[in-house]
Amino acid sequence: MLTKEELSKKVSEAILEVKKSNPMAPSITNTVTVNFVANAQLAVGGAAAMVYMPDEGVTLAKSSKSLYINMGTILPVYTQTLPETAKACHEASNKWVLDPVAVGLGEIRTECLKEFKKYKPQIIRGNASEVINLAKLWELETGASKESVVRGVDSTDDVMDAEIAAKNLAAYTGGAVAVSGKVDLVTDGTNVVLCHGGSDFMPMVTGMGCSLGGVCAVYASVAEPFIAALTATLVYNGAGSKAHEVSEGPGTFQRVFLDELYKVGSEVTAGMEIKNS
Amino acid sequence: MLTKEELSKKVSEAILEVKKSNPMAPSITNTVTVNFVANAQLAVGGAAAMVYMPDEGVTLAKSSKSLYINMGTILPVYTQTLPETAKACHEASNKWVLDPVAVGLGEIRTECLKEFKKYKPQIIRGNASEVINLAKLWELETGASKESVVRGVDSTDDVMDAEIAAKNLAAYTGGAVAVSGKVDLVTDGTNVVLCHGGSDFMPMVTGMGCSLGGVCAVYASVAEPFIAALTATLVYNGAGSKAHEVSEGPGTFQRVFLDELYKVGSEVTAGMEIKNS
Amino acid sequence: MLTKEELSKKVSEAILEVKKSNPMAPSITNTVTVNFVANAQLAVGGAAAMVYMPDEGVTLAKSSKSLYINMGTILPVYTQTLPETAKACHEASNKWVLDPVAVGLGEIRTECLKEFKKYKPQIIRGNASEVINLAKLWELETGASKESVVRGVDSTDDVMDAEIAAKNLAAYTGGAVAVSGKVDLVTDGTNVVLCHGGSDFMPMVTGMGCSLGGVCAVYASVAEPFIAALTATLVYNGAGSKAHEVSEGPGTFQRVFLDELYKVGSEVTAGMEIKNS
Repeated sequence: MLTKEELSKKVSEAILEVKKSNPMAPSITNTVTVNFVANAQLAVGGAAAMVYMPDEGVTLAKSSKSLYINMGTILPVYTQTLPETAKACHEASNKWVLDPVAVGLGEIRTECLKEFKKYKPQIIRGNASEVINLAKLWELETGASKESVVRGVDSTDDVMDAEIAAKNLAAYTGGAVAVSGKVDLVTDGTNVVLCHGGSDFMPMVTGMGCSLGGVCAVYASVAEPFIAALTATLVYNGAGSKAHEVSEGPGTFQRVFLDELYKVGSEVTAGMEIKNS
Repeated sequence: MLTKEELSKKVSEAILEVKKSNPMAPSITNTVTVNFVANAQLAVGGAAAMVYMPDEGVTLAKSSKSLYINMGTILPVYTQTLPETAKACHEASNKWVLDPVAVGLGEIRTECLKEFKKYKPQIIRGNASEVINLAKLWELETGASKESVVRGVDSTDDVMDAEIAAKNLAAYTGGAVAVSGKVDLVTDGTNVVLCHGGSDFMPMVTGMGCSLGGVCAVYASVAEPFIAALTATLVYNGAGSKAHEVSEGPGTFQRVFLDELYKVGSEVTAGMEIKNS
Repeated sequence: MLTKEELSKKVSEAILEVKKSNPMAPSITNTVTVNFVANAQLAVGGAAAMVYMPDEGVTLAKSSKSLYINMGTILPVYTQTLPETAKACHEASNKWVLDPVAVGLGEIRTECLKEFKKYKPQIIRGNASEVINLAKLWELETGASKESVVRGVDSTDDVMDAEIAAKNLAAYTGGAVAVSGKVDLVTDGTNVVLCHGGSDFMPMVTGMGCSLGGVCAVYASVAEPFIAALTATLVYNGAGSKAHEVSEGPGTFQRVFLDELYKVGSEVTAGMEIKNS
């Protein structure tokens, strides 16, 4: 078990290292929030490149330390692009981050998400319902007593309901899982950390979760999966809290949030609470 | 004929009901403004989900009280997705909103728009040229004496030129039509309401019309088509007027506009003028 | 060789003429920054329309004085859309602007960029690495001593390293080339102008380059290619400098930048430095 001090040190190092080395984390991500994903990646100090074609995904998978796959909007070509890219990451031992948006909707999404089990994404980022339903799809124990439903892109579950699913997913992949909600949970299967902060405007801005996944991928270029997922989550909570103070609505919030992502530093580790069960 | 007082009451109820019930209105919409559509839907209190695949469109059509189809950017898969989704809405007696962007451009767009005639969208939202040309495509009387031209996504006609086309479209579908312009016109084929307000910055921000269509779909989840179209149009005019006061240009305007959408209340009914002919 | 006074006069005229005539410059452009491209085109006074389908590209190529092709995100249908649209522009003697984003990545991108050689884009806009590598792909002399690498969408070369490639590309097409970087270079093969200004926030906002290409296309509707490329570049530097003064981060910068694009006038010609070798 890592202490808060140990984690804070590693998180602070990851924040600085990204600003210094400007790592590229390419994405295959949805058209709704792709601009916000790229701008968030740039704001924290990373670089972005988005593609749809299979050969481009495979090329970037081989050349990048970390890549992001977000299932938000499925295109026909994804039947090739997604499995081939995930496989290429896996075979090259490069990290990749999965956001299983809207798991359960449509055949391509379902087939790809099933196939991803064997390519073990080092970070999985989702809301509680997505994490629970991905664990179910992969036939892992979720501990969820009631039926969990993904409503479009929205969660109908609390973050804490997804704790067992998250720990089992992380244990299976050997990576980390970040569950987003009012309080966020990040785990590597053993360590469990809760992250406080953020803003009530966050659910009113599309792509806060998607861009968090992209920022996880940026930090995964310079840190191990658990530290990367934790850093990204803390950074989002810290920037969200700051942006909230000066925002009258979701429009202003989104802009100021990007400013705060750019200004972010080690102070964000204050939002961390160790919850080891 | 409904009085201004009756309409104001229904509009105010729709605004509140959306904030209370957070209804999901999924979209198949263009890549240019898809982010703005989602953010506008969230700002008024609704929820968003965007898809491109046929099976996803059909699933959401069956499970949602209201769905939005915007023709802005056509993809090859739309030959399946659009007619199948519109058909599924129609057969499930769920409402759907059509924005016939750039009617007349390209074969897929034209074929889909023709086919939509039989699936009767409960709300049609467009600029004057789009409304006139959709009526022509559906072989309805437009009353337009001169040739109407759609220039890309821009209108070359005045809103009043589209009154007859709008009334005939609404009479045909049994729903409502909202024509956007300097002054906006909303009709259910019998009642005609003009909506004042807005901002000269609106035509300088891409997606004001597209996102208005998405917001019509949100209100259509809780209100009848005419009230939904009227509410969305009044909300846009009210938020636009407020945002205009503090904006020096279109960049700031767009952000503040989303803040104002979020703050919107029954005061927007002041922009209404009953014009029953 | 044109003098600074002659160039300033032409640039000022182009800025005014666009505000007066609201020219439409359609685009086939990437999904990441398509919204920003459209908003930038609208902010300077132009109009926008984005398409993906071959028949739509060809229709707009024939009816528009200027069209924009940006290679950022390739879709399968582009194997048809891009060459057919470029060919239609060429055959109709309408201008088109090429942004060879990420040249070298993937088969479709490479094949299209090779084929574009025969359809001679009147303006090429890219970063130094993209310009050098496009010249190589077209088997033109680049004068580059070392290996140039395109890292995703980022340049690894300085603008000045691309001067010979830019001049040779412009000489080949009979148009102009704009190389973006800390200082920007615009050339028609004979005249070489450096443009100063802008902001350190620009590389932290995705789509500054893409939208500059779209704005080049707007000005190309009312001016010759060299003046259009120069006007767009000066306008971006001028608006960028102004926006920088009031921005604390990239989020605010992007919004204020659009405001400044809207307010832009002939004062931007101050950023020009004639560098004729």
